[in-house]
Amino acid sequence: MSGNTFGSLFTVTTFGESHGPAIGCIVDGCPPGLELSIEDIQPDLDRRRPGTSRHVTQRQEPDTVEILSGVYEGKTTGTPIALMIRNQDQRSKDYGNIVETFRPGHADFAYWHKYGIRDPRGGGRSSARLTAPVVAAAAIAKKWLFQKFGTTFNGAMTQLGEIAIPFESWAHTSENPFFAATSDAALIARLEDFMDQLRRVGDSIGARIDVVANNVPVGLGEPIYDKLDAEIAYAMMGINAVKGVEIGAGFASISQRGSEHGDEITSTGFLTNNSGGILGGISTGQEIRVSMAIKPTSSIRVPKQSIDKQGNSVMVETFGRHDPCVGIRATPIAEAMLALVLMDHVLRHRAQCGDVSVA
Amino acid sequence: MSGNTFGSLFTVTTFGESHGPAIGCIVDGCPPGLELSIEDIQPDLDRRRPGTSRHVTQRQEPDTVEILSGVYEGKTTGTPIALMIRNQDQRSKDYGNIVETFRPGHADFAYWHKYGIRDPRGGGRSSARLTAPVVAAAAIAKKWLFQKFGTTFNGAMTQLGEIAIPFESWAHTSENPFFAATSDAALIARLEDFMDQLRRVGDSIGARIDVVANNVPVGLGEPIYDKLDAEIAYAMMGINAVKGVEIGAGFASISQRGSEHGDEITSTGFLTNNSGGILGGISTGQEIRVSMAIKPTSSIRVPKQSIDKQGNSVMVETFGRHDPCVGIRATPIAEAMLALVLMDHVLRHRAQCGDVSVA
Amino acid sequence: MSGNTFGSLFTVTTFGESHGPAIGCIVDGCPPGLELSIEDIQPDLDRRRPGTSRHVTQRQEPDTVEILSGVYEGKTTGTPIALMIRNQDQRSKDYGNIVETFRPGHADFAYWHKYGIRDPRGGGRSSARLTAPVVAAAAIAKKWLFQKFGTTFNGAMTQLGEIAIPFESWAHTSENPFFAATSDAALIARLEDFMDQLRRVGDSIGARIDVVANNVPVGLGEPIYDKLDAEIAYAMMGINAVKGVEIGAGFASISQRGSEHGDEITSTGFLTNNSGGILGGISTGQEIRVSMAIKPTSSIRVPKQSIDKQGNSVMVETFGRHDPCVGIRATPIAEAMLALVLMDHVLRHRAQCGDVSVA
Amino acid sequence: MSGNTFGSLFTVTTFGESHGPAIGCIVDGCPPGLELSIEDIQPDLDRRRPGTSRHVTQRQEPDTVEILSGVYEGKTTGTPIALMIRNQDQRSKDYGNIVETFRPGHADFAYWHKYGIRDPRGGGRSSARLTAPVVAAAAIAKKWLFQKFGTTFNGAMTQLGEIAIPFESWAHTSENPFFAATSDAALIARLEDFMDQLRRVGDSIGARIDVVANNVPVGLGEPIYDKLDAEIAYAMMGINAVKGVEIGAGFASISQRGSEHGDEITSTGFLTNNSGGILGGISTGQEIRVSMAIKPTSSIRVPKQSIDKQGNSVMVETFGRHDPCVGIRATPIAEAMLALVLMDHVLRHRAQCGDVSVA
Repeated sequence: MSGNTFGSLFTVTTFGESHGPAIGCIVDGCPPGLELSIEDIQPDLDRRRPGTSRHVTQRQEPDTVEILSGVYEGKTTGTPIALMIRNQDQRSKDYGNIVETFRPGHADFAYWHKYGIRDPRGGGRSSARLTAPVVAAAAIAKKWLFQKFGTTFNGAMTQLGEIAIPFESWAHTSENPFFAATSDAALIARLEDFMDQLRRVGDSIGARIDVVANNVPVGLGEPIYDKLDAEIAYAMMGINAVKGVEIGAGFASISQRGSEHGDEITSTGFLTNNSGGILGGISTGQEIRVSMAIKPTSSIRVPKQSIDKQGNSVMVETFGRHDPCVGIRATPIAEAMLALVLMDHVLRHRAQCGDVSVA
Repeated sequence: MSGNTFGSLFTVTTFGESHGPAIGCIVDGCPPGLELSIEDIQPDLDRRRPGTSRHVTQRQEPDTVEILSGVYEGKTTGTPIALMIRNQDQRSKDYGNIVETFRPGHADFAYWHKYGIRDPRGGGRSSARLTAPVVAAAAIAKKWLFQKFGTTFNGAMTQLGEIAIPFESWAHTSENPFFAATSDAALIARLEDFMDQLRRVGDSIGARIDVVANNVPVGLGEPIYDKLDAEIAYAMMGINAVKGVEIGAGFASISQRGSEHGDEITSTGFLTNNSGGILGGISTGQEIRVSMAIKPTSSIRVPKQSIDKQGNSVMVETFGRHDPCVGIRATPIAEAMLALVLMDHVLRHRAQCGDVSVA
Repeated sequence: MSGNTFGSLFTVTTFGESHGPAIGCIVDGCPPGLELSIEDIQPDLDRRRPGTSRHVTQRQEPDTVEILSGVYEGKTTGTPIALMIRNQDQRSKDYGNIVETFRPGHADFAYWHKYGIRDPRGGGRSSARLTAPVVAAAAIAKKWLFQKFGTTFNGAMTQLGEIAIPFESWAHTSENPFFAATSDAALIARLEDFMDQLRRVGDSIGARIDVVANNVPVGLGEPIYDKLDAEIAYAMMGINAVKGVEIGAGFASISQRGSEHGDEITSTGFLTNNSGGILGGISTGQEIRVSMAIKPTSSIRVPKQSIDKQGNSVMVETFGRHDPCVGIRATPIAEAMLALVLMDHVLRHRAQCGDVSVA
Repeated sequence: MSGNTFGSLFTVTTFGESHGPAIGCIVDGCPPGLELSIEDIQPDLDRRRPGTSRHVTQRQEPDTVEILSGVYEGKTTGTPIALMIRNQDQRSKDYGNIVETFRPGHADFAYWHKYGIRDPRGGGRSSARLTAPVVAAAAIAKKWLFQKFGTTFNGAMTQLGEIAIPFESWAHTSENPFFAATSDAALIARLEDFMDQLRRVGDSIGARIDVVANNVPVGLGEPIYDKLDAEIAYAMMGINAVKGVEIGAGFASISQRGSEHGDEITSTGFLTNNSGGILGGISTGQEIRVSMAIKPTSSIRVPKQSIDKQGNSVMVETFGRHDPCVGIRATPIAEAMLALVLMDHVLRHRAQCGDVSVA
């Protein structure tokens, strides 16, 4: 109830702070008999790891995961799978100046007022570092969903600040440091220049991330409150720095007529996908399409007005190691969250309605 | 787990179908000692009632609520409060033509594939009629929150199709059939003309709704997954026809710099509200601002390609009584959902951290 | 979280008070496609109905159930099934003398201290009348379990006060007013005399109830906390007036050796059933055996010392209509609770492990 | 939903197997600001540690706990507290002979049928070793409850096989290896002889454990299903090997009259405690009294009939290190479970009704 568990039947309960001894999670509800080893999990962790280019935080964390339970002779047993990652590169002194003050746009202020106590080292629990255990957990879900249904997940950055990034192919997202689905070298160079310039002035920038699931079983989602799109919105809005979520046509739906929006169906399938693969909160078997807005990082060197714990006015400049665009590393995280939502709903569907299948 | 309960500590479990004998809900977790009568609930139901103007469905439902339990001598006792509304104006024959076919953009298709059975009368459980019990339940939450913290909720339509509706004052939302926060008679006339024209051609249109809460306690929201904004996104995306949700600056954050986005703080409060009143998933005490996109109604007279249950191609035209813009009646529903989220998080906060207060 | 929902995947959320306008429940998570009508539910309600013999409360309630939702053309649709029973024979004046005082052994005292307010009419929410909706809900679970696995539920009173009631056959439980599994007319007469005598002196008595499930699927129960036996204990101890629960050998296990207790297995099955059909918290496919102790009714005419709301000493005698042995009507309730636990665990098992079967 | 989380607001999610690399848990929902260090937890772990006398398993485990998160500068922060204990003395070869066969009375059979896969090393997840993380978690709850209300927990073995152990004083439970509340040296010697004899013949024995809480706040427990006694029954029956649970007068209630059972109240308190401190499922402020039956260990050297995975008849003798009476180490575990139940219900009460206090 304290919000540290994601999911209802395939659950991920996380722990840890940015600069504590370790971070990790317990994955519960995994079907037994799935072949599982560290090799299934580490590649996803490596994709969201810090320090992989000059455009993300320079903190060096190998993010090596240890499986503490739930696997016997290379297979899941149906009991909880505990995953642990030791923190390695804690440099808490970097954060000395933020212990007593609140960064504008940062969780500092709200944590302090909620709990009356706050671990300020690296943002404590509010750090995006806490997305690592979820990415690890989702790797398990992704493997199971792929084996069972062929479900795949892909994400890309489709806008950085004002710069739109046209979609070409998922294949390109691993060829540049932005998860951009483009092979346009000039565009990538422009993105790099833009980021370099921002870093020089100590500022940060927002981004748009799109994420898609294919080969999704039909019938996932509970019809009233736990609609599949509602749970996706919950999952995505829960990622650090997300300020908006769209499914399918999203905000463009506002100016559509019903005659345009409703996706026509033929005996071979749907003709369009304004719905984003979800109708009445339930998956239709079409591609699921989600888009989200990520705000600029709040920890910046540009000085801003704020207050300290006593309420006195102060100017805050944040030094230390930060992502100038948290949107960059958000792509694998968004894929992970989408996988967790689908996994959970497959199990929920099995409980009430029996087995599921792809259309 | 079947998705018919909203909330975790202040819970609303709903039942009913559009054309069944009754709809209603059980509200559980309400603090004892709150003065409560039908007069506290009926006004909110009346605001979202069908048949109040020519721009909404002409189904005639008085939506008279009955309190079946949980209140003794005019006060809540802490036990479940059951609310029931008898359906009155079921004309199931209107829907005869949709029993065997799937309306493009409608939940028909997904329900059928999920359950293998579907109550087609008025959309069955997928009908927006099922928002009535939630509005009734939220009236209880709103009363308690207002008494305890002075919290208020307001919503308005801010765009209808391509027509933007500039905000003037909440006072005006009750003066026109659109929940438009404007006194501009010419603009209202333009909206009316637009709707009349749509109705003539049997088409429908999308809308944008904004909803706001004031006097919100500080510290609401759980920091990792059950972030306050994540739960609001879940609540709003769960409303029928919603395709996008924004908190604060929303999608505009994408092109903001951190130096612009982060709301500066002075000893007298925040200078801006890009955060929408939520930082790190926790309320800051500022106004909470949410915006959402509502797609056009899928039940339209314009013929569209679809299939029947056997997969044969058919043309579908939907007659019967429908809202040509479901966005119109969505305003009181969005206010209700926001109230339920805040109520739940006040109780969750009390559990772990003790009492809460407005900043 | 306020404790009015039973189950996790097949959930029953109840509402109502003894003397309010209605009692009922919402059953959520029922698999779609089950044929269901009032005829499936009413017989179970009739078995636990008040007023059926002189040995139970004389309150006259037909307990006619109405299905408000979730069934279309005689089949469940997978959406919530709301059940409602209107209260008919409220005679609140009977309870006038208990408004200001606390009955020794009764929930009065605790409710008052918990909520600061209490509906005293007929015990309000603490009345055993609130077991009616659960019995109705369980009838649905029983039908589904029987159709799917042939699972059956039987209960009997096996002790009334000091009088042991040897088990002969379930067939006899419907032949006497005690749910005694005996055809021994002399024993029944002795029980009747005993009850008549108690009623004359205005006192009450405890009882032991045994309940059994047959054709139980193997593998039900979650291994650490939600063990099948743990959930059965929770279900049974939650029935009004239950003070003790045993599974299988129960308290007799204390003086058993391991060499005696452990049920030997052969290729044709288990040789004994000390386990009560559950090992390590998981069903083995054997008969599930539960036994419970029910305390004597607290509402008696015999005067006892107590206090009023102001803490002043008073003598309390309770008039009105009460069961002199709540254990009598507890038998169908205990069967119902066992059915609900098994139903819930079948769905939980399906979610994680896929389909289940009887050994 | 897979049963590895205990509690609803103060939750303990455990992981690990008897012979895996580590066991542990995540404690979520702990109020912020509690001073907490390993010194608060280790003593409780030491009380239930194996290898402390010749009457328990000789496995040598220091059970040294590591706090991985949730504590900053010696105080809880309100975020999840992860606790980990590395397993040290895994001798899996001891269990070689049970990989292919099912021990009579053991979870082996049920796990195999539930999951189709089973970690047989030391019983895997079904081992009583998994009570260690819960004892650690409960130490946190106990500290908080003691600081806030002065609540204390005590347990004792009150029967070993046929030998009753009369209660003298809690002080004596730490003076003998049985948690016997007696200073009677002759009785202790008799218990020792009895255990030595059992060990010689390779058999095991059951026991009765009583556990008590004092200074319990009034008003804990939810009135219908999550009754305080129902949740205690769930907690206790969930402890390995428990087969029966009683609250207050328990099974003795069967032959009590209402005039005897109902605890009379005077202006200075209750005169008796047949209720065990709970009425209508809600705490009265009296001492809470629970008693439970623990079956004899199923892993014994005495040969018994069983089958192997293929269903062939085999004789099973279990060698290796086992507790000949699991009841001995159950005392601190039962205290821990009671503490967790009360802690959870304090938070639940605070959510709905605001703060609580001792009568």
